[in-house]
Amino acid sequence: MAFPLPPGSTIGILGGGQLGRMLALAAARLGLDVVVLTPDEGSPASRVVEHTIVAPYADPDALAELARSCDVVTYEFENVPAEVVRTLLLLDAQVAPGAEALRVAQDRVEEKTFLNAAGAPTVPFAVVDKAADIDAALPDLGAPALLKTRREGYDGKGQAWVKAAADSADAFQAVGGVPSILEGKADFKRELSIVAARGRDGELAYYPISENVHENGVLRTTYAPAKVGPAAQREAERIASEILTRLEYVGVMGIELFELGDGTLLVNEIAPRVHNTGHWTQDGCEVDQFELHIRAVAGWPLGDTRPMVTVEMTNLLGDEADGWLAIASEPNARLHLYGKGEPRPGRKMGHVNRVGALLTPEAQP
Amino acid sequence: MAFPLPPGSTIGILGGGQLGRMLALAAARLGLDVVVLTPDEGSPASRVVEHTIVAPYADPDALAELARSCDVVTYEFENVPAEVVRTLLLLDAQVAPGAEALRVAQDRVEEKTFLNAAGAPTVPFAVVDKAADIDAALPDLGAPALLKTRREGYDGKGQAWVKAAADSADAFQAVGGVPSILEGKADFKRELSIVAARGRDGELAYYPISENVHENGVLRTTYAPAKVGPAAQREAERIASEILTRLEYVGVMGIELFELGDGTLLVNEIAPRVHNTGHWTQDGCEVDQFELHIRAVAGWPLGDTRPMVTVEMTNLLGDEADGWLAIASEPNARLHLYGKGEPRPGRKMGHVNRVGALLTPEAQP
Repeated sequence: MAFPLPPGSTIGILGGGQLGRMLALAAARLGLDVVVLTPDEGSPASRVVEHTIVAPYADPDALAELARSCDVVTYEFENVPAEVVRTLLLLDAQVAPGAEALRVAQDRVEEKTFLNAAGAPTVPFAVVDKAADIDAALPDLGAPALLKTRREGYDGKGQAWVKAAADSADAFQAVGGVPSILEGKADFKRELSIVAARGRDGELAYYPISENVHENGVLRTTYAPAKVGPAAQREAERIASEILTRLEYVGVMGIELFELGDGTLLVNEIAPRVHNTGHWTQDGCEVDQFELHIRAVAGWPLGDTRPMVTVEMTNLLGDEADGWLAIASEPNARLHLYGKGEPRPGRKMGHVNRVGALLTPEAQP
Repeated sequence: MAFPLPPGSTIGILGGGQLGRMLALAAARLGLDVVVLTPDEGSPASRVVEHTIVAPYADPDALAELARSCDVVTYEFENVPAEVVRTLLLLDAQVAPGAEALRVAQDRVEEKTFLNAAGAPTVPFAVVDKAADIDAALPDLGAPALLKTRREGYDGKGQAWVKAAADSADAFQAVGGVPSILEGKADFKRELSIVAARGRDGELAYYPISENVHENGVLRTTYAPAKVGPAAQREAERIASEILTRLEYVGVMGIELFELGDGTLLVNEIAPRVHNTGHWTQDGCEVDQFELHIRAVAGWPLGDTRPMVTVEMTNLLGDEADGWLAIASEPNARLHLYGKGEPRPGRKMGHVNRVGALLTPEAQP
């Protein structure tokens, strides 16, 4: 199948969570079919598609079926095993974003090394293979420093603060004694992010920067567009452009940023997928991040990312989703629920976009 | 199950076309599951839900399964056979909008009789059971008059103009010699419509009036909000309020209007379902007509129907949908495709909402 994929084509999605669900809904609007591959029965994404393959991601029969039935395969999480992508490529499947983006995003040392080479500044860091590596790096990075596993870990899991050299053994044990990275503390003023996309022809698109507030390592609220000047937007777009172009990336990427006191932007991490800090675009922009991603992987023109209104996006965690009726009663609140059964504490059950002022052309960033 | 239905509940939809598809997508956003009943394999709606029952509408096993698996059943077309609703009600299923709305909407004589009794003016009309009834009514109604079958028929089908008494036999034959209605010609200036909703608690909601242009009896373009004064909006809302309240209606209804030269609004017809002239709300309003309908039938608060932008909605008929790539490249154009395979001439394949000026609070109707 040649790109752009015509309506009636089929998109494969690895992963059945809320991101896959919202990708599937966006694909449907464009007349594209979706097949989901997930190990979980009754997943959020499988509830909104006709056909789901329930199997482990690395299952060869499942991957063969996915490759056979889909014109392009994408994913909703960055920890897709490298072998899965390799198998799909051997089956002549199109996979987007590509293997290189996953390789970089799956290892925090590879990620920061790549980012710095791409002209995207990060906090200073050191490779940690043993507790003694922490002791050796601490004088340069300064205390406290943050120890993270190189691979896996998200929403604040697999992390430990090192306040002094005396902590190094405990910290290394706390993250499981696996290959890790020690990161200098970013003395940041705000956490920002930019969600950007690259099309198959190299076209780039950017949303306005958003400001993000985390609680216990989990995103709580996004304010968008963030109150930043045009210089910050330009710098974030420059960083995004370098990253996406060097990776020959196809799709949407979330780029988390630290804003320092002097306005410098550091990249905290990149996510090669649609991103929680981009959920505000569903009710704030012409083309939202989910449609943008589908357009990119299908080889379509990216479309208009301009904001139309200000949005405050709040995640509904655990039993906060029980407040659905009150939220549904609020004017200006747009409720998005993920079809998850059990509201375990901290589980992302949905989000609400509270829409604010209309952004007339003069007021747009 | 008591109303309001909590997230995780299941909505049954009779019909697998584009309206069912867009209803299912709206339900998904609210965390509601959907089961579709349709006689057609591979229908547009079935492509966006996990479970479809493929069977004739009146199939007793299919209806039993639908009643068992759904907390409420709704429909996407007004010609749902009365026996289907009766069967569902006997199975203790909740059905919305109800049987009375279908009864009225399925017969043009019942419809106009009801409308007039509800204080909603229509063109004058006469019941036609034989060609001689046309001759008898023509002097009162004036020529030309429009002969329509009482039941079935849409998008201009099942209609014939009677220009003089000499035409009556031919016209009656042209509509199949079935029970019919002869309607006086409305000397209208514009075709308008109002899409309105009523919730389970009697709450009412209205979108702004839209202006609609038909070609060969099929909707071509909707302009919304229509350029009408506040008096027209108030009158349309009065009419909608009477209709919905008297029917104890639950859900969204499309009400087609004729605007006469002196500003009088006549009701042309009502559709007890989401309506093609309401598609603009998807990209024009906070809560679109599909979500509004789902909220109503699920017993939720109706939500905010205010317009945010002006929209020009154009149906993509037949091979017009082949222009998808050019439309996807247009800034301000939001493409909606229905996942239909074959672009038969005149078939509704999708629509495009072209978004215009932002409506600041002062500019809102």
